[in-house]
Amino acid sequence: MNVREPSIDMNRLFDRLRSLGAIGRGEDGKLVRLSASDNDKAGRDCLVSWLNEAGLEVAVDRIGNVFGIWRDESNEKEMPLLLGSHIDTVIDAGMYDGCFGVLSGLEVIETLKAAGIRPQRPVVVAAFTNEEGVRYAPDMMGSLVFAGGMPVEEALAVIGHDGSVLGDELRRIGYAGTLDPGFLKPHAYLELHIEQGPVLEREGFTLGAVENLQGISWQRITIDGIANHAGTTPMSMRRDAGHAAARVVTFLRDRAMASNSPTVATVGCMQFEPNAINVIPSRAMFTVDLRDPNEQRLRAEEAALATFLEGLAKAEGVRVSVERLARFEPVIFDGDLVAHIEEAASRRGLACRRMTSGAGHDAQMIARISPAAMIFVPSVGGISHNPAEFTPEADLVAGATVLLDVVMDLVRSSGAQA
Amino acid sequence: MNVREPSIDMNRLFDRLRSLGAIGRGEDGKLVRLSASDNDKAGRDCLVSWLNEAGLEVAVDRIGNVFGIWRDESNEKEMPLLLGSHIDTVIDAGMYDGCFGVLSGLEVIETLKAAGIRPQRPVVVAAFTNEEGVRYAPDMMGSLVFAGGMPVEEALAVIGHDGSVLGDELRRIGYAGTLDPGFLKPHAYLELHIEQGPVLEREGFTLGAVENLQGISWQRITIDGIANHAGTTPMSMRRDAGHAAARVVTFLRDRAMASNSPTVATVGCMQFEPNAINVIPSRAMFTVDLRDPNEQRLRAEEAALATFLEGLAKAEGVRVSVERLARFEPVIFDGDLVAHIEEAASRRGLACRRMTSGAGHDAQMIARISPAAMIFVPSVGGISHNPAEFTPEADLVAGATVLLDVVMDLVRSSGAQA
Repeated sequence: MNVREPSIDMNRLFDRLRSLGAIGRGEDGKLVRLSASDNDKAGRDCLVSWLNEAGLEVAVDRIGNVFGIWRDESNEKEMPLLLGSHIDTVIDAGMYDGCFGVLSGLEVIETLKAAGIRPQRPVVVAAFTNEEGVRYAPDMMGSLVFAGGMPVEEALAVIGHDGSVLGDELRRIGYAGTLDPGFLKPHAYLELHIEQGPVLEREGFTLGAVENLQGISWQRITIDGIANHAGTTPMSMRRDAGHAAARVVTFLRDRAMASNSPTVATVGCMQFEPNAINVIPSRAMFTVDLRDPNEQRLRAEEAALATFLEGLAKAEGVRVSVERLARFEPVIFDGDLVAHIEEAASRRGLACRRMTSGAGHDAQMIARISPAAMIFVPSVGGISHNPAEFTPEADLVAGATVLLDVVMDLVRSSGAQA
Repeated sequence: MNVREPSIDMNRLFDRLRSLGAIGRGEDGKLVRLSASDNDKAGRDCLVSWLNEAGLEVAVDRIGNVFGIWRDESNEKEMPLLLGSHIDTVIDAGMYDGCFGVLSGLEVIETLKAAGIRPQRPVVVAAFTNEEGVRYAPDMMGSLVFAGGMPVEEALAVIGHDGSVLGDELRRIGYAGTLDPGFLKPHAYLELHIEQGPVLEREGFTLGAVENLQGISWQRITIDGIANHAGTTPMSMRRDAGHAAARVVTFLRDRAMASNSPTVATVGCMQFEPNAINVIPSRAMFTVDLRDPNEQRLRAEEAALATFLEGLAKAEGVRVSVERLARFEPVIFDGDLVAHIEEAASRRGLACRRMTSGAGHDAQMIARISPAAMIFVPSVGGISHNPAEFTPEADLVAGATVLLDVVMDLVRSSGAQA
C-alpha cells in the first residue's frame, strides 16, 4: 500500500493541550495538578481516554507511570521506542511544561498509525509520575523508579508535604498499577519539552537538540558573625555575616561572568538574622545553586567556592559552614539521537542548535537504561512554572514534526514500514 | 559646717541596679520591661520608692516621665540641673542600658545630700518614658515630648504593636501624670550611659566624654529584577535582584572602609523573593542604615549611594526604588559640659576620650532645650540589648564618680555650697 507523507494534526494537538490545561484549575483560575491529587487524577483520566481513543494499549506500573503502547504481533518482541514526559504540574503552572511532550508523543503515534506506517518496533508514549516533586520528593520520581534508581516500595512510602503517603494517594485515585516499573526496556527514549529558559528565543532558534543536561550542586551556606549595634560599632570592628554573604554572591557572579564556560551560579535564598535595621547581622543563611554540563568543571567551581569561603572566614572573622543539599552529575545524552534530531530539523529547514538542558527532566533518568535525547522548543521570555509560560504554535508544530521525523527514522530504519 | 569630700556609695548603686534588673523577668529568666506594661509599672514603682526614701519630691508628667526633685526654698527659683535616662527595656534586655544612668543620678543626689552639699540650683533625676520604642514608636518619646518635639496628645494616642494605646496604658499602670511635659526648664542635662559599642573597651578607655551624636539616615531599598530558572538562564541574560542587592552591600562596606571618616553603613534587613533555591530572585528588599556625626558628610554618603543605585539599575537592568524610613540630623552636645566631663575624669586620673554616640539617647532630645552632654562607660564586647550586656563594677564606679564631680562643679559654681 502507498504511504502518505505523514504530518501531525496540529489542531488536535493544540485542542488537547488546551483541554488538559483546563483541568485542575481552581476558582482563582490557577492551574495546579500536584502528583496523585484529585486534579492529577482528572488529568490522567483525560489522557487515558485519549490513549484509548487512539487504540493504544494502556498500562500503569506500580509507581503510577501511565503508558500508551502501540504494538502488534509483528514487532512486540522488539524493544520499544519510548516517547515521554509528565503531566503533573507545579502550583500556578503553565500548560506546556511536560504536557507538550506527552501529547506530542501521542500525536506522533496517531499520525504514524493514520499514515499506515507499520513500525519495526513498538512505539510507546509515557507520562511519568511526579516529575515536579512539589508534593513528594524527589522530583522526577516516576522515571527514576522506572529506571531502577529508587526501589518502588521506598517511593510509594514517601510522605508528602501535606502528610499524605504517595502509595495511598495513587491507590485512592486509581493509578496504583500492578506492573513492575521497568517492565518495558526501551530501545531509545525521546522527550520533547519547552526550553524553560531564554536561549532559543533570544538567539533566534526554533529548536534545540539537547546533548546534555547540567550537573547540579546545591549547597546551603551559613555564615556566623557577631550581632552588634549598627550605630556604635565602627566598620573596622565588625563581623558582619550579611556583608560576608554579599561577598559570596558577588564572587559567584563575577567568576561565572568572567568565564567562557556555561557554568551558572545562583543565590536564590537569602536570610539574615536578627534581620533588624539597626543590628549588624549575626547570621546569614543562603543557598548556592551551581550547574555545569561538565563534571570536572562543576567540581572545579565547587572547589573555587570552598577556597573563597575559607579566605572569607579568615578575612572577615566569621564562621562559615556548608551543608550539601543535592548533587547530581551531568547527563550526556546519546550522540546518535542528538545527530538524528539535528538532521531532521535541517531537512525541515528549521534553525536548530545543540544545547544543554539547565533544568532536570525525566530524560535524565531514562538515560540510565537507554539511549536518550531531548528536543526543546522556545519558551517566550524564558518563562516557565508560571501562567505566562508560552510557546508560539509554529514552534510547537516544529517540535512535534521533528519528533515525528526522528521517530519515523528510528522505526523505519530497517525498512519495516508497509 | 565642714563638708566631707563626697563619694558615691557603690554598694547601694550596685544593689539597686541588680534589684531593678530583677524586676520584669519572665519564667524564662528574660528581662522585658516594655514601656507602660505591667513590668514597667513594677520597675517604676521600685524607682519611686527609692526616690521617696531619698527624700525627693516625686513628680510625673502627662507622658509618664518620672522625676525625683531635690530642691529647697533657697534654690527653687533657679533652673534645675537635670540628670536622667530611662528604665524601660527592649525584649530580653540587659540590666545596664538606661537604668545605670537613672540610678547613678539618684546616687549622686543622695551622695550630695549626705555630704551636706547645698546646691545653688535644684538637682533632678528623670526616668523618661519609652526610650526604647519597642512597644510604641517613636523611640525616645518621653524626652521628645518633654523637649516640645511632639505634642503630648499625639504621643498619648500612639497605638502600640500590640494594639494598645499608650495613654490608656499609662493610666492603667498609674503613671499618667498631670504635669505638662516641660514643666521643668533645665539649666543643663547630663546623661550617664553604657556605650553599647566596643570602642572604649578596645581602646582601653574607662570613660567617654560624648561630644556629639550621629545623624541617622534609614532607607528601605527595593530592587526588582526578573525571576527565572536558575538552571536554564545564562549568566549574561539575568536580571538578578539578589545579586544587585549584594552589590549595594559590598559598595557600602568598601566605601565606608576606604574612608577616614567615622561613617558607619549597615545593611541589617535583607529579603529575597521568591526566595527559592532554583529561582533567580525577582526582588530583593533591604535596609540601609547610614550614620555620621557630620550632617554634610551624611548627605554626601546618601548622595553617593543614590548615584551608585542609579548606575546599578542601568548596569544590571533592574528597577530600584528607595523609601526613606527615618532621618535625624546629628546632635552636637554642649562644648563646656563636654570639657567639664574631661576635666573631671582627668582629676580622677581616669582615661577618657571624646567620642560620638552611635546610638540614640534621651540626651539628643533634651539638647533641643538645654545644654546637654553624655558620659559613657565601656560595654564589654560592645554588647547591648542582650542579656550579655555587661560593664565591670570599676567602670560603673568611675562613671558615677565623674558624674558626681561634674554635678558638684555645676551646683557649686557660684560658691553656693554650705
